[in-house]
Amino acid sequence: MARDGGELKLLGLWSSPFVTRAKLALQIKGLSYEYVEEDLGNKSELLLSSNPVHKVVPVLIHNGKPVCESSVIVQYIDDAFAGTGPSILAADPYQRAVARFWAAYLEDKIVTPWRRVFMVKTDEEKAEVMRQTIAAVAVLEDGLKECSGGQGPFFAGDSVGYVDVLLGGMVSWLKAAEPLSGDKIIDAAKTPLLAAWMERFCELDAAKAVLQDVDAVVEYARALQARIAAATANNQ
Amino acid sequence: MARDGGELKLLGLWSSPFVTRAKLALQIKGLSYEYVEEDLGNKSELLLSSNPVHKVVPVLIHNGKPVCESSVIVQYIDDAFAGTGPSILAADPYQRAVARFWAAYLEDKIVTPWRRVFMVKTDEEKAEVMRQTIAAVAVLEDGLKECSGGQGPFFAGDSVGYVDVLLGGMVSWLKAAEPLSGDKIIDAAKTPLLAAWMERFCELDAAKAVLQDVDAVVEYARALQARIAAATANNQ
Repeated sequence: MARDGGELKLLGLWSSPFVTRAKLALQIKGLSYEYVEEDLGNKSELLLSSNPVHKVVPVLIHNGKPVCESSVIVQYIDDAFAGTGPSILAADPYQRAVARFWAAYLEDKIVTPWRRVFMVKTDEEKAEVMRQTIAAVAVLEDGLKECSGGQGPFFAGDSVGYVDVLLGGMVSWLKAAEPLSGDKIIDAAKTPLLAAWMERFCELDAAKAVLQDVDAVVEYARALQARIAAATANNQ
Repeated sequence: MARDGGELKLLGLWSSPFVTRAKLALQIKGLSYEYVEEDLGNKSELLLSSNPVHKVVPVLIHNGKPVCESSVIVQYIDDAFAGTGPSILAADPYQRAVARFWAAYLEDKIVTPWRRVFMVKTDEEKAEVMRQTIAAVAVLEDGLKECSGGQGPFFAGDSVGYVDVLLGGMVSWLKAAEPLSGDKIIDAAKTPLLAAWMERFCELDAAKAVLQDVDAVVEYARALQARIAAATANNQ
């Protein structure tokens, strides 16, 4: 039960960085909820009926009404529980706009190419995707300065906000990149502010409660890559 | 001058559907602003310094502070001028979430493939992009029902809202699709609610004041396609 007495249920998958964003927002707001782990090989009727357009997790169900898409869920939690816990988006319209700009940047320039790393076939293509992702992360370092007014340590300043939650949900995958590919996505030598951000983020109670074990993510990603490689080989 | 006495300046390009979204939001809120037409072959220093990350229009500059990305600009106008004119996003958190979900759908499933139509090389690829776009528009018909609670005529119900503004900015391009490709993207036979939405939208004072002339868009798109084809041929 959420604090307002409404029922909150999250349909998720332990490994998903997008589900982790929703979990972080719920944790930061101090909301309790029922968590349902989905089997993507055998999706529940509840998932299919709650997200008929995309049929993917996360889905947050609040008093029977579904909310889909991780960035929409995080904003919904902030809007619907405005009186509970800290705010995720600032009250100031300009700060909100700056956060939304960098959130869109994160999705378009970092998440989209990074997701392709599992789909490309050759080592050369993988290296190119990693190169694009790392170049985009370097620009996000400027975003951290702009969002926090150079004050840090978080995008939202002293406390975590919208961009922190969206990037924060991906931290275990960002850390898994090095054992998986040999390249650091967030490297203290190239993006010192983001590296300090990541350390500080991992120290938060909400992060400790929610972030996946990095070794488990590495193992999961290796198995996923092997399944995709086998499926591709079978189709050739 | 905006009604609050703040200075509003919009850096734009007449043909851009994304700039048109910003113009629609300003018009709906009844805000006056200075409009600056950019020359994309020779971008102004103001554009380059206001949007250093993407270097594209639209950029809204409010009291000297730049806001970039059309969806971020529309939300900023709604937030910063909350007391002026009608609201673009509903006050109800769930209605906001539903609007944001369909806005994300519009960007990912319709705008992204549709933009590719100018980049693909063969007629077969163009036909495939149009097929994907038209299939995605059929799902948006369900979105119109869900957003307006089946009540229509707009996504936001009786008046225009967030999804209306984002889709509305694209109306002249949607209409230009038929002369350009032979296919209607919004077809009364396949998506009757969206076709009725488009007619109703075009009757709004804000739309009449802002939407581009369809013949001019057709001419612009043909010239753009010819330039891209020539550039591609030169690179082969």
